[in-house]
Amino acid sequence: IMKRFTLTLAAVVSAIALSGQPKTSYVNPMIGTGRMGHVFPGACVPHGIVALSPDTDTIPHNIEGKYQPRAYEYCAGYQYDDPTIVGFSHTHFSGTGHSDLGDILIMPATGPVKFNPGTTADPDSGYRSRYSHESEKAVPGYYEVTLDDYGVKAQLTATKRCGVHRYTFPQDADNPHIMLDLNHAIYNYDGKVLWANVRVENDRLVTGYRITNGWARTNYTYFAIRFSKPIRNYGYTDFATPSYRGGFAKFDVKHNFPEIGGKQVVCHFDFDPADGQPIEIRVGLSAVSCEGALKNLDAETQGKEFDCIVAEADTAWEDALGVIDVQGDADQMAMFYTSLYHTMINPSVYMDVDGSYRGLDHNIHKADGFTNYTVFSLWDTYRALMPLYNIIDRKGSRDMAMSMLAHYDQSVHHILPVWSHCANENWCMIGYHGVSVLADAIAKGIDIDKEKAMEAMVSSATLPYYGGTAEYMKLGYVPLEATSTAASNTFEYAYDDWAIANTARILGNGEVYAQFYARSANWKNSFDCGCGLARPKYADG
Amino acid sequence: IMKRFTLTLAAVVSAIALSGQPKTSYVNPMIGTGRMGHVFPGACVPHGIVALSPDTDTIPHNIEGKYQPRAYEYCAGYQYDDPTIVGFSHTHFSGTGHSDLGDILIMPATGPVKFNPGTTADPDSGYRSRYSHESEKAVPGYYEVTLDDYGVKAQLTATKRCGVHRYTFPQDADNPHIMLDLNHAIYNYDGKVLWANVRVENDRLVTGYRITNGWARTNYTYFAIRFSKPIRNYGYTDFATPSYRGGFAKFDVKHNFPEIGGKQVVCHFDFDPADGQPIEIRVGLSAVSCEGALKNLDAETQGKEFDCIVAEADTAWEDALGVIDVQGDADQMAMFYTSLYHTMINPSVYMDVDGSYRGLDHNIHKADGFTNYTVFSLWDTYRALMPLYNIIDRKGSRDMAMSMLAHYDQSVHHILPVWSHCANENWCMIGYHGVSVLADAIAKGIDIDKEKAMEAMVSSATLPYYGGTAEYMKLGYVPLEATSTAASNTFEYAYDDWAIANTARILGNGEVYAQFYARSANWKNSFDCGCGLARPKYADG
Repeated sequence: IMKRFTLTLAAVVSAIALSGQPKTSYVNPMIGTGRMGHVFPGACVPHGIVALSPDTDTIPHNIEGKYQPRAYEYCAGYQYDDPTIVGFSHTHFSGTGHSDLGDILIMPATGPVKFNPGTTADPDSGYRSRYSHESEKAVPGYYEVTLDDYGVKAQLTATKRCGVHRYTFPQDADNPHIMLDLNHAIYNYDGKVLWANVRVENDRLVTGYRITNGWARTNYTYFAIRFSKPIRNYGYTDFATPSYRGGFAKFDVKHNFPEIGGKQVVCHFDFDPADGQPIEIRVGLSAVSCEGALKNLDAETQGKEFDCIVAEADTAWEDALGVIDVQGDADQMAMFYTSLYHTMINPSVYMDVDGSYRGLDHNIHKADGFTNYTVFSLWDTYRALMPLYNIIDRKGSRDMAMSMLAHYDQSVHHILPVWSHCANENWCMIGYHGVSVLADAIAKGIDIDKEKAMEAMVSSATLPYYGGTAEYMKLGYVPLEATSTAASNTFEYAYDDWAIANTARILGNGEVYAQFYARSANWKNSFDCGCGLARPKYADG
Repeated sequence: IMKRFTLTLAAVVSAIALSGQPKTSYVNPMIGTGRMGHVFPGACVPHGIVALSPDTDTIPHNIEGKYQPRAYEYCAGYQYDDPTIVGFSHTHFSGTGHSDLGDILIMPATGPVKFNPGTTADPDSGYRSRYSHESEKAVPGYYEVTLDDYGVKAQLTATKRCGVHRYTFPQDADNPHIMLDLNHAIYNYDGKVLWANVRVENDRLVTGYRITNGWARTNYTYFAIRFSKPIRNYGYTDFATPSYRGGFAKFDVKHNFPEIGGKQVVCHFDFDPADGQPIEIRVGLSAVSCEGALKNLDAETQGKEFDCIVAEADTAWEDALGVIDVQGDADQMAMFYTSLYHTMINPSVYMDVDGSYRGLDHNIHKADGFTNYTVFSLWDTYRALMPLYNIIDRKGSRDMAMSMLAHYDQSVHHILPVWSHCANENWCMIGYHGVSVLADAIAKGIDIDKEKAMEAMVSSATLPYYGGTAEYMKLGYVPLEATSTAASNTFEYAYDDWAIANTARILGNGEVYAQFYARSANWKNSFDCGCGLARPKYADG
């Protein structure tokens, strides 16, 4: 159904004919997982909200307010050079320059239950495990690794809203169990998890949620977990001492009590000694409710074998990647299709299967005629990624534009997203580049309400308390007093203003055109002709 | 529509004919507001979730885990002997022996903004104010007082889901402003408020919510506040230092920034110097969403003058209290109708005007054919209050029984409420007296699904990990090893078992009848014929 594009890479085509192979075979999810690549090797489907992937360490963003520089390495949870895996969490950004998420971490283990993840220096102090890259396999939609400390083979796949785990324990493993760490998070400083609730609904179903105060200031992650085998025994610890336990004090809440709550909750679920048959764990996520998570889980995984879900994920990727045909040598093909793969992870679907989603106003909305997306890293993506979608994924592009307009409707500032994720504006970076994204969509004929888009664009460009905009509108540039990035702000605003002017021209709106065409020349006010470079200046010129 | 009952008090009827007066004229809401009465003098309508009432102090339940005995005096927020008023919060229990709530405190003030409430010993250290009882007026549905420190006359009324405030500032008051303290709570220990969000939607509308970890372990209170005059200026402080501010660090978030969030948030809203015209503030609450709070606010207050809402509250009380006609002297009439008034506050409606409510599972449900209620203090109310409703308020009684059955459906323990409020089981006190309440309803012909009620009753009586029930079922009594209240548990369980047996008899269920009739004799196992008293014994008899 998608238009297919055929490109030929400039390099000489390899003598070996590669073009008959599946596109997915060229993708290597390990590329970029070292140092500052900030991508993850785990399992996801195109634009799925679930990215089920190993986290190789947990470095808090700050300790008592002091920034921990190594946290930045863990934006996507995984560092190739790390010797241990802490566990498999369900949400990860791909390629961002800042972070959050790492929600709902699951880790299989054997022997005595350890509630803390331990350290890289002393893995035996916690539930984490050593592993080696030899046992890893990472392809689009599937990841596997052997956890050496437990002899457990871990296999992961995903649907849009669900993570699917298969853990094969050694025969007669001692106390095989599954850790569910609701305290784990990426950029996990003290107090990031505001609250976690868990309900053990029956011996195969667990529901719950957690609320985090992260880069997304108030982020709600609801989950529903189905185990393929009955839970024999379970319990939890709360690393935070509850201020007050009320009537719960009359119970032995830590052991087999099905109503768990706390600020730093880590649970274990024990199973009968392994019979060589794997334990499968299926986790549905929702930002709406536990009910929504369960609906998502059942709609996307019920009645499907693990291998079938792997195959569906593979097919989804093959279909998505097939939108562009290229030829090149093996390295070029890997580079191209891995890059294309990376363009198709974020933004992510942020909506239950029934169309309910949590809006920026934290109310629950129904998406009317579109699929709601989140993760709009617009300063990073307005130049290339979003315009690319207008060529290769016009339906997705329309859905994303509609999601941005819904954000505008729900914004107390009445603006388009700057950098938004999970029903929150995180305010990262500068500019009001949502306008550029919509301008490109309109210029390329994406079917959205153009007048409404125009209104949202003008409103976003005239908010008077954002990054020196008041001064910009008065002086024609952002003065250095307002922000240390003043020259960049001026240049980016001027570009966005040009995008608005061009859209106004398309829509025949002369007034907006004149206003913003004039504003688009403002970059000149922060350009130093003497040195030939952008240079900020003070308000007094 | 209600059946009216006529009683004659045993005492000699006063020579002054009292019976022609409105029933509300006999009610004195100040009765019980001293010492351990645990009732509030403020404004509410029958069974409304909003109880808008002055709080005269804030004593935390504990400080670093150490219980503060004086907290107990403040179960309903108000102590008659206190010399100051901290402010007016929207939710209060009436007559309970433990506490929570005190949500969404509003206080008018003048002069420099003070963010903390100050202390009784030094009222000028905070925003609280001195007052005297001479300026107080408390009648059903209406409360007024003069706040001496600011010369502000405060008038309060309520609908089921809304609090309505009218504050008259002195002419030319200096910086008249309204404090919105989202950190205030009854039994307010450190960390009780998990999170608070506020959105200043426009210069007359503020929405938001807070989540508390109190006696109700995870309690969601959403609000929508409409001011009758435009906000001129606003801001907040957060007494908790945020661990991480992310992109919000680029804003002056404390001043006129419409997106506020934090753990200990106190806001101020400033208005133009007073012109002698009162500021009216209308606050809708919801446990579902801000959208729900706004719907409730507009459905119940839009287009109505303050005095009209007062009159409607008065009429609601007159209608409710009119269900029983008594005659007696002035003291007897005050005692009777004030007591009757106190029977009609809790349980409270816990449902938006559109039928949505937060269930015990924290999912949002639609009430199908009933009005959902909360605050089931059943150990206190199974003997007299709930049976009274089966006589004087059969519709309310049915709604409450249906609410209890919904609780059962949503309970991860599959049991009826023990002591539940605000979508949480707080587990206070002993027994499974929900069964007694339903048994009385069925015996008195309340129209509920009797078979389902029977199922819920049996399930509640056989939960094996609650208050020595496992041992009770095995030994025929609760042994002292299980709980220090073992003899009481045995007696109460036996009574509840008799209630189940009697219901089974009505329904013709011989098996359940036989089982529970046998259990109902268990009290004998904890009765010491020697001393003629109940006496607990150990498991070995």
